[in-house]
Amino acid sequence: MNIDELTFDEQGLIAAVVQDAVSKEVLTLAYMNKESLQKTIDTKETWFYSRSRQELWHKGETSGHTQQVTDIRYDCDQDALVVLVVPSGPACHEGTYSCFSHSLLGEKKEGRTDRFRILNLLEETIAT
Amino acid sequence: MNIDELTFDEQGLIAAVVQDAVSKEVLTLAYMNKESLQKTIDTKETWFYSRSRQELWHKGETSGHTQQVTDIRYDCDQDALVVLVVPSGPACHEGTYSCFSHSLLGEKKEGRTDRFRILNLLEETIAT
Repeated sequence: MNIDELTFDEQGLIAAVVQDAVSKEVLTLAYMNKESLQKTIDTKETWFYSRSRQELWHKGETSGHTQQVTDIRYDCDQDALVVLVVPSGPACHEGTYSCFSHSLLGEKKEGRTDRFRILNLLEETIAT
Repeated sequence: MNIDELTFDEQGLIAAVVQDAVSKEVLTLAYMNKESLQKTIDTKETWFYSRSRQELWHKGETSGHTQQVTDIRYDCDQDALVVLVVPSGPACHEGTYSCFSHSLLGEKKEGRTDRFRILNLLEETIAT
């Protein structure tokens, strides 16, 4: 499979579901253009395209919370990706393990899904 | 959280990552408009908006392979959903458990992730 065979949308983007390769939790839904996908394949770390800032971003470049890529899957329509990663820290800019930490149906599940919760607590404890 | 607080795009859609609540495999990336999300919440089965057919679709209406919703999560930007489901059959119109059954990096993982593989094999054996 060549990445040229994937279907990028009219903005040149493809949706990328980022999933923890071990816990299987969905961490983030982000977007890649062809260049960021190629960088992801080459470096085995996640690179995305920011629709708001209109630029490439290397996840973890500022925070240090990079994501090591173990596999990339594409769907039957070849217009969406699942990127399996081993995260080195929280996926979310809000500091949570996953960006999907709130339930629309009113159930809070963060406590059960936050792999880094104990580390965050430890960090807070040390800092105070 | 009210669904009116979610951010739908200029087409009135929000991306919905459908994930098996038990195996945690990502099954499909689909899109919902406000009406299909409300139907999903009300019926506890997945309803999507087909961008190609420009109409609502109730997953499993034709195939019988409905998806029972156990939770819906939204992300930090409130512009993407993870819908946790218990599927009653393959998610993919190609008959596979997940739409993401091919690896871009050349690794085939279908055998390990296809919950229904043994049933498909059994069906094929009985049919031949």
